[in-house]
Amino acid sequence: MNKSLADLKIVIVGLGLIGGSIARGLSNKKSNKKSNKKSNKESNQKLCREIVAVGRNEKILQQAFDDGIITGYATDVAQACVDADLVIIAVPSLTVEKVLQELKPVIAETTVVTDAASVKGAIIESVSRVYGEVPENFVAGHPIAGSENSGYSASLKDLYKGKKVILTPLDHTSQSAVSLVQVLWESLGAEVIKMSVAHHDQVLAATSHLPHLLAYALVDTLSQQGQSEEIFRYAAGGFRDFTRIASSDPQMWHDIFMLNGDATIEVLDEYMTDLLRLRTAMQNRDSDELMTTFKRAKKSRDKFLEHFPGAEK
Amino acid sequence: MNKSLADLKIVIVGLGLIGGSIARGLSNKKSNKKSNKKSNKESNQKLCREIVAVGRNEKILQQAFDDGIITGYATDVAQACVDADLVIIAVPSLTVEKVLQELKPVIAETTVVTDAASVKGAIIESVSRVYGEVPENFVAGHPIAGSENSGYSASLKDLYKGKKVILTPLDHTSQSAVSLVQVLWESLGAEVIKMSVAHHDQVLAATSHLPHLLAYALVDTLSQQGQSEEIFRYAAGGFRDFTRIASSDPQMWHDIFMLNGDATIEVLDEYMTDLLRLRTAMQNRDSDELMTTFKRAKKSRDKFLEHFPGAEK
Repeated sequence: MNKSLADLKIVIVGLGLIGGSIARGLSNKKSNKKSNKKSNKESNQKLCREIVAVGRNEKILQQAFDDGIITGYATDVAQACVDADLVIIAVPSLTVEKVLQELKPVIAETTVVTDAASVKGAIIESVSRVYGEVPENFVAGHPIAGSENSGYSASLKDLYKGKKVILTPLDHTSQSAVSLVQVLWESLGAEVIKMSVAHHDQVLAATSHLPHLLAYALVDTLSQQGQSEEIFRYAAGGFRDFTRIASSDPQMWHDIFMLNGDATIEVLDEYMTDLLRLRTAMQNRDSDELMTTFKRAKKSRDKFLEHFPGAEK
Repeated sequence: MNKSLADLKIVIVGLGLIGGSIARGLSNKKSNKKSNKKSNKESNQKLCREIVAVGRNEKILQQAFDDGIITGYATDVAQACVDADLVIIAVPSLTVEKVLQELKPVIAETTVVTDAASVKGAIIESVSRVYGEVPENFVAGHPIAGSENSGYSASLKDLYKGKKVILTPLDHTSQSAVSLVQVLWESLGAEVIKMSVAHHDQVLAATSHLPHLLAYALVDTLSQQGQSEEIFRYAAGGFRDFTRIASSDPQMWHDIFMLNGDATIEVLDEYMTDLLRLRTAMQNRDSDELMTTFKRAKKSRDKFLEHFPGAEK
């Protein structure tokens, strides 16, 4: 780690859950509240020189400024990014390309640009379309952190603490750009992992995109039934978790399925095959098949807990 | 409520999560620990005269006795149920019929019998097979409470507090038997709802059985992939919830799908139609269809929260 953030001007484009939480982490401010006399005791040491936010909603930007989370703001990407050392694009996946276009005229060759979108293949394509190639200082990234709540008001200083961030650098991506982005995430408490763009999109399709699709579909199926009021009233544990998963930001998930549909369809098809196998087992009252499947799933859960010891809570 | 539990001998067949939690609630004992001097200050007033447990594992029965959760125990159903006023059958759904057979020779006509199985149609069929008809003192019931943990060690005094219990009495079921079972559950803090057997099995297929099936299938699909280790390592929030749901007691869920397969298949088929619609939307990059579905699901979640104000936690 030969890079430090201390002297840098960092620009965050998009001050929602993801961008807001980055700003909170960088500013080292715990809460929304304006600093008062008591909080003067806190060190409140920023991790970088400047934290400039870009957003559409000036009221939220002003609030973040008043909160002491950012040192400046703009509604215009180009204006904010002059002299930026590091630009973090934290907008819905389908909006990233527009931001890249606005960035293009002002960005210095030395400025490192990264993003936080949940899909990586489509982002690399966007960058190629805008720049003709992927600049060596562009580092695609994805923090595996989120919440069913969205927007600046849901942002948390410690959102990334103990979470994993996947970076998907290309062969020609600058090593020092990658290490700067790595330092950024590590300074927010995250663990950085590197993998290929295609592999990221496959793994995330399986572990995140498909589960969300299944949850959205279930809530949708049941809410369209004639007795939906009653179904919600008697909902047991399992369904409750599904509705929570399905309450995540619709725009964000719309963009993910628009951009990572192919990888999601691939694992969805495997899933539907498995589901049809269980359907047949139910239809045939196939005791062995059901029991074997459920025992195997329980074993997998135990294996999972080895990786996430806190997940049982 | 013209019934009181105070003078009754209550027998609980099966001292797992469900039966153990009933015993804890009836005995008014908070924890597993043997009573010591400090706990003498607690009132520890039992809600009924006797709490007798029947189980296969004598060690657990003795432990429950030492814990002060039960006043007696047996490994033999017939032996325990002589003179019982109320028998609660809290064993896996497919074991209920065996218990009913063991109960038949000793049960008094006045003894009220209820169960706690997650399916009701199959239980009513079992009762009919064993008794030739459904006795007027048999009240089928289902507490909508549980946990991904199972067994006596997972039982909780307050498991039923604020939870719903569905009773599915038949036309000829004795009113006083129903009201006794209602008093039982209400004394444990639950809210009692009545509905028909078929309706129960439909509603539960949609809100509980299908979600569990989907979770089991997902964990199974992914754990069989070559890269399953990695998939578990990068698992994001959505998948984590699925693995928790899929870690519930395999035997219990095996029985549920063996016995309520038809109702589950019915709602599964609707679900798969919905899933295929979303698959087509992804394939066609159908922005409107995806956005409409996700927004509708989020609205349903908000509606759901009206019924379960604490569910967002």
